[in-house]
Amino acid sequence: MTLASSVLAGDRYSFARLLTQVENDSAEGRAALTELFPHTGGAHLIGVTGAPGTGKSSLVNQLALHYRRSDGRRVGIVAVDPSSPFSGGAVLGDRVRMRDLSGDPDVFIRSMASRGSLGGLARATAGVVQVFDAAGFDLILIETVGAGQAEVDIARLVHTTLVVEAPGLGDDIQAIKAGILEIADILVINKADRPGVENTERALKSTLELAHPAQHIFRHHGQYASVALAPAPDTAVWIPPILRSISTDGTGIPELAAAIARHAEYLRSSGDWSARERSRLEAELDVLIREALVKRFQEDLAPDEFEKVIDRMVDRELSPWEAVNSLLNGKAG
Amino acid sequence: MTLASSVLAGDRYSFARLLTQVENDSAEGRAALTELFPHTGGAHLIGVTGAPGTGKSSLVNQLALHYRRSDGRRVGIVAVDPSSPFSGGAVLGDRVRMRDLSGDPDVFIRSMASRGSLGGLARATAGVVQVFDAAGFDLILIETVGAGQAEVDIARLVHTTLVVEAPGLGDDIQAIKAGILEIADILVINKADRPGVENTERALKSTLELAHPAQHIFRHHGQYASVALAPAPDTAVWIPPILRSISTDGTGIPELAAAIARHAEYLRSSGDWSARERSRLEAELDVLIREALVKRFQEDLAPDEFEKVIDRMVDRELSPWEAVNSLLNGKAG
Repeated sequence: MTLASSVLAGDRYSFARLLTQVENDSAEGRAALTELFPHTGGAHLIGVTGAPGTGKSSLVNQLALHYRRSDGRRVGIVAVDPSSPFSGGAVLGDRVRMRDLSGDPDVFIRSMASRGSLGGLARATAGVVQVFDAAGFDLILIETVGAGQAEVDIARLVHTTLVVEAPGLGDDIQAIKAGILEIADILVINKADRPGVENTERALKSTLELAHPAQHIFRHHGQYASVALAPAPDTAVWIPPILRSISTDGTGIPELAAAIARHAEYLRSSGDWSARERSRLEAELDVLIREALVKRFQEDLAPDEFEKVIDRMVDRELSPWEAVNSLLNGKAG
Repeated sequence: MTLASSVLAGDRYSFARLLTQVENDSAEGRAALTELFPHTGGAHLIGVTGAPGTGKSSLVNQLALHYRRSDGRRVGIVAVDPSSPFSGGAVLGDRVRMRDLSGDPDVFIRSMASRGSLGGLARATAGVVQVFDAAGFDLILIETVGAGQAEVDIARLVHTTLVVEAPGLGDDIQAIKAGILEIADILVINKADRPGVENTERALKSTLELAHPAQHIFRHHGQYASVALAPAPDTAVWIPPILRSISTDGTGIPELAAAIARHAEYLRSSGDWSARERSRLEAELDVLIREALVKRFQEDLAPDEFEKVIDRMVDRELSPWEAVNSLLNGKAG
């Protein structure tokens, strides 16, 4: 019995072991991913992103609890921490979470920290998500810490992207929003019991109007939106709803789950689901090819070739571009 | 007269034009970089990083003003915004800054936003910094927004890294610090007039103690450190000092400039300067090679080859790893 078939048979130990193999990019991991690939495509992949301090982790916990209690669907959580390339962050996340969700065999949490390169992290994340998908998790929540390119990369790997904000997170947040908003399918103002929530909502709304100038932005009124914003029926365009939540007590979580479900319906009815599947796989292939190209280059290099070129750069005999040409053209291919 | 020689002759128009060429990775830009490379190596490259909301941009402005007023050295500012791959952020930053520093020909500010890939941004940043260096800027401040892998990548390209914190920035900041602290040469608690500054300092101090367990961490007492922490003379190891600042009114800026100068002295006297130069150039070459490998791969690809492979992946006929093998082995080299 292969590792992949044990995973398909529901063996939890094999599942955890395969995740490690995939993270380490072992030959066994790659073979298992290939065997599992035909079994993927069933899960709804949901990215959760936003700046530090917005309470993303507890929001993700609450969403997972909600799904488990309301409809019993199996939930995977992949917490990606590109800001801790060295140590710490991701492990801490695991421990904080376990208190809420431990003991439920249909929730599985995997924390991943960057190991040197963002490309390596994106590769590992894509692989881990495939394992969850093939193992029959219905919803996979992929959370990223930070507010940079990593988020954009992760957004390319999911169907639905939640961008989490919180009131009063400092003055240069505004500059960040413009970019991050363009990847948002759903906007969540967490910690909505804090002062400044109206300002945050106003700022998000006006930024959204800039990003979607042709559409009329509106929000269901009431303290917490009880109905997610539906796309205008005549345009069939998704307008990101703005929701409020308080993840510490679960306020707004059912409404958020409803908005996520509505987005999945929208994707399926509009045909965007298969478009996203295609661009997801394209992004994944792009990540793998970049990694493979670098690996092959390194393997083909003579042992001291790189060092010699660096020596000449240090002495300013060779410019970086000249070094690239020398290293690439000195090789077959 | 080449573009590079105009830049060396001090022509400001050519300087700005070359920065654009380098950002666009044009052939002219590459040729000029190669011509300028022997003239680089004179500048002190200083990275400034930290989470959104810490007031990094105004801190960088204040530092630049301080250098201009106190010793007249020429200052370049490169503001890198990996969180705005689409639009907005960086341009805004330019406008905010111009009010303080415009009119001084010996301060030049360049804002850069990501254009698609983090690799492209790192490549462009390295090139732009080389142009500043060759053009005779004494100090180059390289600021990044966010708290992710981009910071770590930029830290590899500088001599001295400042990590900026601020009091009261939310609860999951802690998890980020562990990673980011390991790249810090100097820690700055900006917005030090805010409540919670003692807590922030205590947290930084204990995290530092974890990161540098063998060293005794101490801080010069007083409301604002007037003397930066010197390395213990018997170990010749740099212990990152923790400084406080209020960038809105300039408090703590002279002390910060002194700490930066002290770090440069430390690097030179310990021999670490040349080690950092070497690893800087290594990191730069790494970035360029990755970009060049991908470019060559794309150029060698038959027009519809990639699309066909994606089609088969969408149909689950080909796994991502099988797709990589098919694309890489179908090609020479």
